[in-house]
Amino acid sequence: MTQELTKEDVTALILSAKKQAGLTWEGIAAQIGMSPVWTHSAAMGMNAFPPEKAELMVRALGLPQEAAAVLSESPTKIWSQTVPTDPCIYRLYEIVGVYGPTIKALIHEKFGDGIMSAIDFDMSVTRVEHPKGDRVKIEMSGKYLGYNAW
Amino acid sequence: MTQELTKEDVTALILSAKKQAGLTWEGIAAQIGMSPVWTHSAAMGMNAFPPEKAELMVRALGLPQEAAAVLSESPTKIWSQTVPTDPCIYRLYEIVGVYGPTIKALIHEKFGDGIMSAIDFDMSVTRVEHPKGDRVKIEMSGKYLGYNAW
Amino acid sequence: MTQELTKEDVTALILSAKKQAGLTWEGIAAQIGMSPVWTHSAAMGMNAFPPEKAELMVRALGLPQEAAAVLSESPTKIWSQTVPTDPCIYRLYEIVGVYGPTIKALIHEKFGDGIMSAIDFDMSVTRVEHPKGDRVKIEMSGKYLGYNAW
Amino acid sequence: MTQELTKEDVTALILSAKKQAGLTWEGIAAQIGMSPVWTHSAAMGMNAFPPEKAELMVRALGLPQEAAAVLSESPTKIWSQTVPTDPCIYRLYEIVGVYGPTIKALIHEKFGDGIMSAIDFDMSVTRVEHPKGDRVKIEMSGKYLGYNAW
Amino acid sequence: MTQELTKEDVTALILSAKKQAGLTWEGIAAQIGMSPVWTHSAAMGMNAFPPEKAELMVRALGLPQEAAAVLSESPTKIWSQTVPTDPCIYRLYEIVGVYGPTIKALIHEKFGDGIMSAIDFDMSVTRVEHPKGDRVKIEMSGKYLGYNAW
Amino acid sequence: MTQELTKEDVTALILSAKKQAGLTWEGIAAQIGMSPVWTHSAAMGMNAFPPEKAELMVRALGLPQEAAAVLSESPTKIWSQTVPTDPCIYRLYEIVGVYGPTIKALIHEKFGDGIMSAIDFDMSVTRVEHPKGDRVKIEMSGKYLGYNAW
Amino acid sequence: MTQELTKEDVTALILSAKKQAGLTWEGIAAQIGMSPVWTHSAAMGMNAFPPEKAELMVRALGLPQEAAAVLSESPTKIWSQTVPTDPCIYRLYEIVGVYGPTIKALIHEKFGDGIMSAIDFDMSVTRVEHPKGDRVKIEMSGKYLGYNAW
Amino acid sequence: MTQELTKEDVTALILSAKKQAGLTWEGIAAQIGMSPVWTHSAAMGMNAFPPEKAELMVRALGLPQEAAAVLSESPTKIWSQTVPTDPCIYRLYEIVGVYGPTIKALIHEKFGDGIMSAIDFDMSVTRVEHPKGDRVKIEMSGKYLGYNAW
Amino acid sequence: MTQELTKEDVTALILSAKKQAGLTWEGIAAQIGMSPVWTHSAAMGMNAFPPEKAELMVRALGLPQEAAAVLSESPTKIWSQTVPTDPCIYRLYEIVGVYGPTIKALIHEKFGDGIMSAIDFDMSVTRVEHPKGDRVKIEMSGKYLGYNAW
Amino acid sequence: MTQELTKEDVTALILSAKKQAGLTWEGIAAQIGMSPVWTHSAAMGMNAFPPEKAELMVRALGLPQEAAAVLSESPTKIWSQTVPTDPCIYRLYEIVGVYGPTIKALIHEKFGDGIMSAIDFDMSVTRVEHPKGDRVKIEMSGKYLGYNAW
Repeated sequence: MTQELTKEDVTALILSAKKQAGLTWEGIAAQIGMSPVWTHSAAMGMNAFPPEKAELMVRALGLPQEAAAVLSESPTKIWSQTVPTDPCIYRLYEIVGVYGPTIKALIHEKFGDGIMSAIDFDMSVTRVEHPKGDRVKIEMSGKYLGYNAW
Repeated sequence: MTQELTKEDVTALILSAKKQAGLTWEGIAAQIGMSPVWTHSAAMGMNAFPPEKAELMVRALGLPQEAAAVLSESPTKIWSQTVPTDPCIYRLYEIVGVYGPTIKALIHEKFGDGIMSAIDFDMSVTRVEHPKGDRVKIEMSGKYLGYNAW
Repeated sequence: MTQELTKEDVTALILSAKKQAGLTWEGIAAQIGMSPVWTHSAAMGMNAFPPEKAELMVRALGLPQEAAAVLSESPTKIWSQTVPTDPCIYRLYEIVGVYGPTIKALIHEKFGDGIMSAIDFDMSVTRVEHPKGDRVKIEMSGKYLGYNAW
Repeated sequence: MTQELTKEDVTALILSAKKQAGLTWEGIAAQIGMSPVWTHSAAMGMNAFPPEKAELMVRALGLPQEAAAVLSESPTKIWSQTVPTDPCIYRLYEIVGVYGPTIKALIHEKFGDGIMSAIDFDMSVTRVEHPKGDRVKIEMSGKYLGYNAW
Repeated sequence: MTQELTKEDVTALILSAKKQAGLTWEGIAAQIGMSPVWTHSAAMGMNAFPPEKAELMVRALGLPQEAAAVLSESPTKIWSQTVPTDPCIYRLYEIVGVYGPTIKALIHEKFGDGIMSAIDFDMSVTRVEHPKGDRVKIEMSGKYLGYNAW
Repeated sequence: MTQELTKEDVTALILSAKKQAGLTWEGIAAQIGMSPVWTHSAAMGMNAFPPEKAELMVRALGLPQEAAAVLSESPTKIWSQTVPTDPCIYRLYEIVGVYGPTIKALIHEKFGDGIMSAIDFDMSVTRVEHPKGDRVKIEMSGKYLGYNAW
Repeated sequence: MTQELTKEDVTALILSAKKQAGLTWEGIAAQIGMSPVWTHSAAMGMNAFPPEKAELMVRALGLPQEAAAVLSESPTKIWSQTVPTDPCIYRLYEIVGVYGPTIKALIHEKFGDGIMSAIDFDMSVTRVEHPKGDRVKIEMSGKYLGYNAW
Repeated sequence: MTQELTKEDVTALILSAKKQAGLTWEGIAAQIGMSPVWTHSAAMGMNAFPPEKAELMVRALGLPQEAAAVLSESPTKIWSQTVPTDPCIYRLYEIVGVYGPTIKALIHEKFGDGIMSAIDFDMSVTRVEHPKGDRVKIEMSGKYLGYNAW
Repeated sequence: MTQELTKEDVTALILSAKKQAGLTWEGIAAQIGMSPVWTHSAAMGMNAFPPEKAELMVRALGLPQEAAAVLSESPTKIWSQTVPTDPCIYRLYEIVGVYGPTIKALIHEKFGDGIMSAIDFDMSVTRVEHPKGDRVKIEMSGKYLGYNAW
Repeated sequence: MTQELTKEDVTALILSAKKQAGLTWEGIAAQIGMSPVWTHSAAMGMNAFPPEKAELMVRALGLPQEAAAVLSESPTKIWSQTVPTDPCIYRLYEIVGVYGPTIKALIHEKFGDGIMSAIDFDMSVTRVEHPKGDRVKIEMSGKYLGYNAW
């Protein structure tokens, strides 16, 4: 029936254009003036591009103009594996399983009864040189939200 | 039958002693010369204390001497909720669901085909002041492990 | 081993005292100056009492003094039924299943790409008279949180 | 084989027409004289349009005439994620997990042994201005149904 | 801690008294003037006894007086097996799986878009003689509830 | 590869023909001399038509002749939702959850140790007028099967 | 509270008496005049003993007299592992997974549209000598039940 | 891309040819000199045909020559329903649930600590006449495998 | 009721005796003349001790004499985590997920259509020195079992 | 939309080319100078080919040149069956269930608190002749990783 571009289509177009142009996520992120983590997740359809950033993506990767509106739509965030199987992602799940109660306890100790927001949130992934083997550094920052009592 | 101390018993003793002495995890960690994240997770039975650190814990919290050996045993790390329900921990699970593929893509871009170790790993949780509301900062660092090809 | 009061113990004490004193949640809530929804959920161990409210609970229900500290601890919110079976609670789950995507679409239309907070949140349950049968009215209010782009 | 319009087809046609005409759910709802919540959910195939409302939808959005009959069919309400992953919808699931037993207890206190109907039911979503950040207000109203004893 | 009677305790008392007195559910139901289906389900803690029926139960089975209040409490209806394993109960689950969509289609044909209430509901189980083997007859009756459109 | 009619194809043909001819399940059932419940479930592919009834279906609905053989094949009865989400079907699941143990207890009381067959089984759905709102009546009848002891 | 014998208690008593008397299931079965398969499953609480067989069990194993009534109660058949983990039992599950559709096809070919009853059912397990290693032989026999069409 | 025959394709070709030629599984099995159970399961892709049997299948059913190689490939045995819903197959699952521990106990009694192989295994399904209704007889035979101790 | 030693009791006794005597699994295995893998798994209740090995265990660890018979009973092998959470065990599950189809393909290539037995099976775990960090070596050996065709 | 080769496409091309050329995994592995286990798993898309090995694969199997880049991409490792059903793979899952805690205990005894890496890992599958039937030998070797304490 209707043949409009979906978020999945635009993600495929981005991946294809990135490959043919030999770009990196870091490079694309720099071109649109955003961070690599956010840029990749939005390109995967897990975040919505503000309109001007969507335009920059279209230009940077030579996407069809109608892709801009699609990139700006609020996505429905869906993941199909309750427990991820890919080892790289599973290790993150394992960290939540092992250290989740610890993070919770320390947030309570440092802030009070509340949580770290996953919405007012940002993150970076960097490579840190180390004599015994380089290390992956993940930094997360989320606004503290205290529980309401009413 | 046998009535020896289990890891669960020692965790209960620690929580009770901490409460009565009015201690914080940060304070206990300082007393034994370890980080608060590791100290809490080991106290919960999710990590094993090196023998000398176990001794320090026993002294710092006035635990029975036999607790030291229990603290040093290698734990079996078990969590019972495949998807955690507590909002503070669920947000971390959500971050893995939303950003897991992104972290994976950036590790591949920066390092090659491999993962961040969850074993040769450390983490901190800190409070960062911010005019629009203070923020929780979580920093994770794990050794990059490249897949073997043989 | 240690025989301290747990959150479950205090919930049981509250239910028992409430029954013997012939109190209602509405009445208890009025005595401590909080809403009935919050008061019940905190009494069930799903929210933490601010210290002064914990003191009021202890006095209102004649609980042992040590219960106050327990009521003030940050709870770990756990529910064991992924899909609730009790018909009264299931209907709420059903409403989320049927109308969840609709609520999401209208939040996006009225606010932008974001969510309703379940932390900076309050709720009331009231009875509304109606000629064809009285109605249950549930009002929820949560702060709008817009997704961060960084 | 047979090539008739399905509910999914009509939903796609509606979304496409809405986008091209630059309409809002609020606007469409006003045109057919129904509420935005109900209109969106029926457009998604989660409720059946009364025949005259189906005709109004066809006219308002320029749908093919045969869509009217499809819009009037009783839908089979299916959702595939037992626990929703989208953060905006998950927060509602979380509210049911945390406050479900509380809503149940207050219904019992105010009405007796029964439930809030999810069938004889209506809901609204509104934006409420607030100095510390605007709030999402969700109001649900369902007929009280008392359990039968026979 | 507190040692009050729970619904489970009262169910156990009922089963024990019924066995010692050599009663049947049909007999108990007759004594309290209710149907056997409802009486059994309420005795199992799946329905609440109106106060006067609770008194009759206490008298009919010689239960402790405090059991009456427990029998009148609104139960939380919980079943732990998502798919029941007992063959007698599984067959009912199978009937829902095989004939559920058929019952739905016929309700829509005969009534419109709505459901059979499971709250304003009653049921009977009877034995019907038959030359090829007696038959179990289950009769359910629930109020038709039409979906609201608003 | 092979392009033969499947059970799903024939169900689609039946639904399409029924719609175009403006028939009801009750009407189709009368034409082939079977009950509405059985007719619908067999048309959905959940029961096999005896050859002569298959011929009647083909004639009544103007199906292609080859559909008759397909209608007569023994189906594999599959349902994909362990817990059905449609409210009309869920209520039946709920009834099994709440009253399953009660039905079992009364079968044991009236017959002995055995079950109600779901194979040598029939069912009807009827509309019963009622001053407070019409009611759905479901009548099930299954042969009692006593457990074998050998 | 009440301290009556449960089915689990009687199973434990049987296992203990069997061990101390050095009996086999074959031997016990012979003493009560039933097959070993049925005897074991009834002793495990998966089948009900006819009263006279219950008496024989009590005598054969020196059980307390009140055990007879418990042995005669209709059990609720519950297994907790949806997929059994014990290799000996898993192999049977695997056989159902691999050969279930085949058994179904051959029943349809030999009998028509129906099933093998698991209620009017019996089974034996025997040892068959074989030069390449003795074999386990399992023979099941269940009444054919044809689907009803009405 | 590549358009080679898959196991699923060949199964479809077999079912189609069998239908058009009016064959039975018993008949096909006789033609290739194998048992009906094995023949059906191999035709469904649950077992691999020895090359000469594959040739006989191709000839018996007039399959394309390239089907022979496909029939001889080792299949990956997959079933998608953890708990089968078709009543005919579910009854077998139920038998494993109810009698699995019994079969295990009798194997241990007759052979020692081990299992019945599901690999060195054969099975038959036959119809047994019976005055009260014919019976399905399933005979399984698997090599006893004793656990290794090393 | 009966107070006999269970497999769990004996496992606890072994662990306690091993700790107090400062033994290793390697040491205990050497004392009873079995391998460390088998000895540990049998001590955990996952394998049955031949009677003479059970006697040696009793002597080596100073267990009560009645423990010998318990150690010789055929265990029911149960694990409760479908997906293990402990990182050390999860990695093994991951290896099966990633390399399972590969092991299957190579077994088919080297042997034919069949499997590696997990019953006629043995395994060792050894430490292998390596300049870049010592390695864990796991060697498994199981009898090849070819599928029967009949 | 875009029509580029995916990992699944290349796997299909490899399987087809291997079949037509009559190659074995052992043979292909020898041609590219890698082990059969690694070669098969990488060909299945479970590991990434180093660029020069990808080129060798393309040449050895006559794949289109663009396949080389695809073979070198980091795969997302996904398996869809939490518990594998194929008997050959299930036996490996069973071994992890039965012996996982034993492998863990022996690693702790021989190395300390840590795990065997599944990333810095290699494996072989070989056929070992044996008078009572040849055996499958699986050898795994992974770097020992000790838990960090910080």
